Amino acid sequence: MSQACIFCRIIKGEIPATKVYEDNDVLAFMDIGPVVKGHTLVIPKAHYNPLMATPPEALHQLITVVQRVARAQMQGLRADGINVSQANGTAAGQVVPHIHFHVIPRFAADGFHGDWIAKRYDSPEEMNDFAQRIRQALIDPLPPQSCND
Amino acid sequence: MSQACIFCRIIKGEIPATKVYEDNDVLAFMDIGPVVKGHTLVIPKAHYNPLMATPPEALHQLITVVQRVARAQMQGLRADGINVSQANGTAAGQVVPHIHFHVIPRFAADGFHGDWIAKRYDSPEEMNDFAQRIRQALIDPLPPQSCND
Repeated sequence: MSQACIFCRIIKGEIPATKVYEDNDVLAFMDIGPVVKGHTLVIPKAHYNPLMATPPEALHQLITVVQRVARAQMQGLRADGINVSQANGTAAGQVVPHIHFHVIPRFAADGFHGDWIAKRYDSPEEMNDFAQRIRQALIDPLPPQSCND
Repeated sequence: MSQACIFCRIIKGEIPATKVYEDNDVLAFMDIGPVVKGHTLVIPKAHYNPLMATPPEALHQLITVVQRVARAQMQGLRADGINVSQANGTAAGQVVPHIHFHVIPRFAADGFHGDWIAKRYDSPEEMNDFAQRIRQALIDPLPPQSCND
């Protein structure tokens, strides 16, 4: 628990939220600033942040609830599709520093368009260089770092 | 395996890919159209789609590899943050109908800006209505549906 964390305060009941699911470890509640109406947040009750420093068992619990909420949005809201989104660090657009998954119901004409512009590597060698740096870090990992906030 | 699925063909080795991680069940490889350079895809070797119809055990394997790739991007690419994104259905922007997680390294000035505009519900009652429809579907779930493609 972090007293400064708005999500921890929601968990403690100090700030109201419209909950859709709760168990011992996970809470799902409505985002009050939905990018599409029905937008739901799934969070652990323990204060973990970011994803890179969250225990894998907690991630497993979270993604299981994400799946249940996604199914429920399809069924209950008659959505056409679902986006799942998760941000780590201010550079990634994260606002509340307590790991959370966004589960967003999508409709054919909901007006939510990402800025998803596929770019190109300058050369095959450049892509290979990026890949090699990721591979090397997978082989020889350091302890999880914080984001550069 | 689906012969028509480009990701299944990558898994079978029929289409080349720049791999960064592989185990018996999961493959991670470079997206050739990166929204930010270093953009990596994490997929199951079995053909599951969408997230709503993917076995929870497979989701657990996938999110574990997503975390490892995210850590490796932080370390190997000296990223400032990470976005994780997952789309289900053409309404959500999904292109390849084989579940995949995007792991995207973020940098303070990488020029990738989402269209993340927080909207408002018309009233508290409207939000409660959405929440109630999700709650009801959580309590009384139907079998997972396909997306409306």
